[in-house]
Amino acid sequence: MGKKVVVVGAVAAGPKCAVRVKRLDPDAEVVMIDQDSLISYGGCGIPYYVSGDVPDEKELRSTNFHMLRDEYFFEKAKGVTTLTSTRVKTIDRPNKTVTAEHVSSGEVQEIGYDKLLLATGSEPIVPPLPGLDLDGVFTVNNLHKAIEIKDRIAKGQVGKAVIVGGGAIGIEMAEAFKDLWGIDATIVEMKSHLLPSLVDWEMADILARHLRDNGLEVFLAETAQEILGDGEGRVRGVKTDKREINGDMVIIAVGVRPRSSLAQEAGLHVSRGGAIVVNERMQTSDPEIYAAGDCVEITHLVSGQKFFAPLGSLANKQGRVAGDNICGVPSVFKGGVGSFIMKGFDMSIGSAGLTLEGAREAGFEADISLTSPIDRAHFYPTQAVTCFLMVFDRRSRRVLGFQGIGPMGDGILARINGAAPLLCEGGVIEDFNNIEMAYSPPFSAAIDSINAAAYVAENLCDERMRKIDMGKFFAYMDNPALEPDWVMLDVRHPKQADPFVEKFGPDRWLSLPYDEVRNRYEELPRDKTMVIICNAGSRSYEVQRFLDHHGYSNNTVLAGGINVVKRMNVDWLPPT
Amino acid sequence: MGKKVVVVGAVAAGPKCAVRVKRLDPDAEVVMIDQDSLISYGGCGIPYYVSGDVPDEKELRSTNFHMLRDEYFFEKAKGVTTLTSTRVKTIDRPNKTVTAEHVSSGEVQEIGYDKLLLATGSEPIVPPLPGLDLDGVFTVNNLHKAIEIKDRIAKGQVGKAVIVGGGAIGIEMAEAFKDLWGIDATIVEMKSHLLPSLVDWEMADILARHLRDNGLEVFLAETAQEILGDGEGRVRGVKTDKREINGDMVIIAVGVRPRSSLAQEAGLHVSRGGAIVVNERMQTSDPEIYAAGDCVEITHLVSGQKFFAPLGSLANKQGRVAGDNICGVPSVFKGGVGSFIMKGFDMSIGSAGLTLEGAREAGFEADISLTSPIDRAHFYPTQAVTCFLMVFDRRSRRVLGFQGIGPMGDGILARINGAAPLLCEGGVIEDFNNIEMAYSPPFSAAIDSINAAAYVAENLCDERMRKIDMGKFFAYMDNPALEPDWVMLDVRHPKQADPFVEKFGPDRWLSLPYDEVRNRYEELPRDKTMVIICNAGSRSYEVQRFLDHHGYSNNTVLAGGINVVKRMNVDWLPPT
Repeated sequence: MGKKVVVVGAVAAGPKCAVRVKRLDPDAEVVMIDQDSLISYGGCGIPYYVSGDVPDEKELRSTNFHMLRDEYFFEKAKGVTTLTSTRVKTIDRPNKTVTAEHVSSGEVQEIGYDKLLLATGSEPIVPPLPGLDLDGVFTVNNLHKAIEIKDRIAKGQVGKAVIVGGGAIGIEMAEAFKDLWGIDATIVEMKSHLLPSLVDWEMADILARHLRDNGLEVFLAETAQEILGDGEGRVRGVKTDKREINGDMVIIAVGVRPRSSLAQEAGLHVSRGGAIVVNERMQTSDPEIYAAGDCVEITHLVSGQKFFAPLGSLANKQGRVAGDNICGVPSVFKGGVGSFIMKGFDMSIGSAGLTLEGAREAGFEADISLTSPIDRAHFYPTQAVTCFLMVFDRRSRRVLGFQGIGPMGDGILARINGAAPLLCEGGVIEDFNNIEMAYSPPFSAAIDSINAAAYVAENLCDERMRKIDMGKFFAYMDNPALEPDWVMLDVRHPKQADPFVEKFGPDRWLSLPYDEVRNRYEELPRDKTMVIICNAGSRSYEVQRFLDHHGYSNNTVLAGGINVVKRMNVDWLPPT
Repeated sequence: MGKKVVVVGAVAAGPKCAVRVKRLDPDAEVVMIDQDSLISYGGCGIPYYVSGDVPDEKELRSTNFHMLRDEYFFEKAKGVTTLTSTRVKTIDRPNKTVTAEHVSSGEVQEIGYDKLLLATGSEPIVPPLPGLDLDGVFTVNNLHKAIEIKDRIAKGQVGKAVIVGGGAIGIEMAEAFKDLWGIDATIVEMKSHLLPSLVDWEMADILARHLRDNGLEVFLAETAQEILGDGEGRVRGVKTDKREINGDMVIIAVGVRPRSSLAQEAGLHVSRGGAIVVNERMQTSDPEIYAAGDCVEITHLVSGQKFFAPLGSLANKQGRVAGDNICGVPSVFKGGVGSFIMKGFDMSIGSAGLTLEGAREAGFEADISLTSPIDRAHFYPTQAVTCFLMVFDRRSRRVLGFQGIGPMGDGILARINGAAPLLCEGGVIEDFNNIEMAYSPPFSAAIDSINAAAYVAENLCDERMRKIDMGKFFAYMDNPALEPDWVMLDVRHPKQADPFVEKFGPDRWLSLPYDEVRNRYEELPRDKTMVIICNAGSRSYEVQRFLDHHGYSNNTVLAGGINVVKRMNVDWLPPT
């Protein structure tokens, strides 16, 4: 008989480890235990099951060759003994056993192990709101809840939904309600922008606008205070610090935390945030016990700090590394940069690495380059504007993060995937200047969006370019008295600039086309600070270089340009 | 007056350098010279102009804000003096002047320089065939020819086209003829597969099949010997070593070579292949003279050898680096891995790094992992099969190249872009195991295609997996006598396996479903070599591990599986 490996948790990291062990060491006796009856499912697919894109929940827990991944499958096809509906209650480390209890029968058994993997996953954070126990209030942390949500929708019991939490799951669920079922949905996010910690506000604002354009309500910087009932035990809405929102279903999606009580009670080292501490081999503080997936913390390869990255992609990688080490193959999992991608109606948004806020918290002298390039050769018929934000450190010139939003498709993914490996390797701006992205007109511009973002970062770092950020610009547009000496210098074609000049008056908005600047720059005011504006920011930069050289250096560039402004939540644009 | 910079060539690298110089040093006097009247165009867009996707050639030479990039534009908007239809005849290095002649007036002028950039590009290789001067024979190396080709098409003068050369431009041109204009087109490629040097034959075979399915004729391993005329000076077809092919237009697209005679005559260091030799700052052997774009050779960051990579994306980067160094900014261009992407009807194909053949030529102990993963979560409705080929070195475990083909869209691009930065950094298989690709069901599987390809490479390197390649398998299927002791072990569902068993008989094709192997393996023959077959190769590998352990180690896996076979040019598949 081979070594005995016990795996606690059978969703992503657990099964990956279990089957890797069986392949590396077919003699090993592997027992996988999960408290749930449904196992090995694609949890990230839940919103697509709720929406109806995935018609049957069984597809979420099937292989790509259409076999249902239940306990019989793992037994028959993989040789892994699988106990479902069975909860591991305690770990006896000195004797190397776990105590497992069947959740319905209460039957208890002791199972010995040579090596143990904890893949206990995460659990939803539930804020302590009154009314949580009302009928119609859900978290989305397992398949049973997803099935019940969809069941209610299919029965026509959901007229309006309120989603508490504007993270990825909250947004995907809101889209699921609205897009395919036509159910009105409201997102309430406590922070001032969607997807906090994943992207910066400029990207999030574009997404929020798009969600609103598709019929969702999005309330930001607003805190749910109470779940409201109808007096008969059913939910009727959510009370926030600003209003009451009606809804006959409420989804709580404010985030997840590592599920680590089993590890904690066994005396394993657990972080302050509750994540199991592991080394690069996924070993816990007990070398016979491994942990992987949403229950652990990993090293952020940009900040060097530990972080919690509950992502299915990482769980699988960690499970494989744990399996390797259990079998004596010395693999390592060095950490990650939290690569992220999401669909929101007809847009996709993604990121990798640190946000500006996160980078500053981590001690970097961080700044951003905001760009709005066209995603293909500009002459290619399907081209569209995309927006990217590169976070960099002015001191070390290291690139710290990269974010993008654009049309739905794999174009944003292609740039996030291009950036992530270099972020992991500590790449500086100059590395990103020359990062070699494949080019052909149907796929990209000759200068890829990543390169373009790095060029701008370089020009900023070298102080060849000076900019104002969108936040400052928006504040000014809302209240021009903030910057009485500013005048906008619009270098776009008069067709594009004129409506702005007309709306804001020539004292605030000047038009001087890009290709006339060299001949006419002496007409420009010397006593004003000029905010140079074009569509993408590149003409503005060029004009800035020229004006600086000719003594008109009281100028700054609106980074990102009107391409970005037009996609954000602004109400002052002139009609076009 | 600032320094005087002369730029020879005004398509990609030249203009990029010229305008970068003006931005870094607005005092610089920049003169850009091109022998053509049309400049600064997206040459890679020519096939899309010919097809009609791009209605007007002016779009190829406009900015993304719709200004025509002609000599007036460079003068007015960029401050760059631009001489078109002007050929630089000689460089007088001691006196730092160039002699330039107007191509129609013959007027000659001498222009002094402090720094000179050669961006003379490439020129088409034209094989010495009889009949090259017939009316209707074209290369596609500049916009004038593209305009004439399209003009003839639009006038209905082209009924059938023959394209000599199955590289990227040849294929794109063939698609342009067929897809939008419905003109029959035949590709004749001398090598045994399309896109030689860019991808290996397995990928190329899938593309060839797709081109044929879309109505193109593709003849491989066939050499054009003569362009045939109609006796009145017009082309009527092409004679190859195998047949005569009719056509009233012939496109010669067998590749390009660096245009370097000007550099050569000036005594600059030029490689045996005719490329201008530059250092990482894009300086030639004369430190006052820079070169960039299709006329130079660069370092291949995998092989370390010099190579010729005539790609618009690299030309732009090199032009910028040259501009930097001309102005004292110490940028470097370290080299590249030849990242490549192409559309072919409804598929996209891409690569980065070395092919298997190229890797072996470069001295690596190279092998491949061939995989056929699903491009999204397998439950996501738009999922589709993709095929990837990873080239790796068995000695150093370094990943040497990555290729993929799949549905049209940015999915293949996302993987090529993900792989390229790590290829440049010398990444080994283990780095690619854990490369962090963003995941969400609409975009990828939890284990991304790159990771999956690396997993297979690792299993091969560690000799946990043994495989036969498609070539050997196809040879056997064509002639079973080659391997009389082989039997196929099909572990797919009987619904998929049965038609094969029926067609080839149970002596050659056995069916034993994956999930029954553990119970029924003793039924398997001990006196045969089993070729284990499934759709993607992963079940086969798992079965191999199990059988090896149980003493049935006379087995091998068909790498890539039936997913790949079904997409290739095979005629022996049973009807489904």
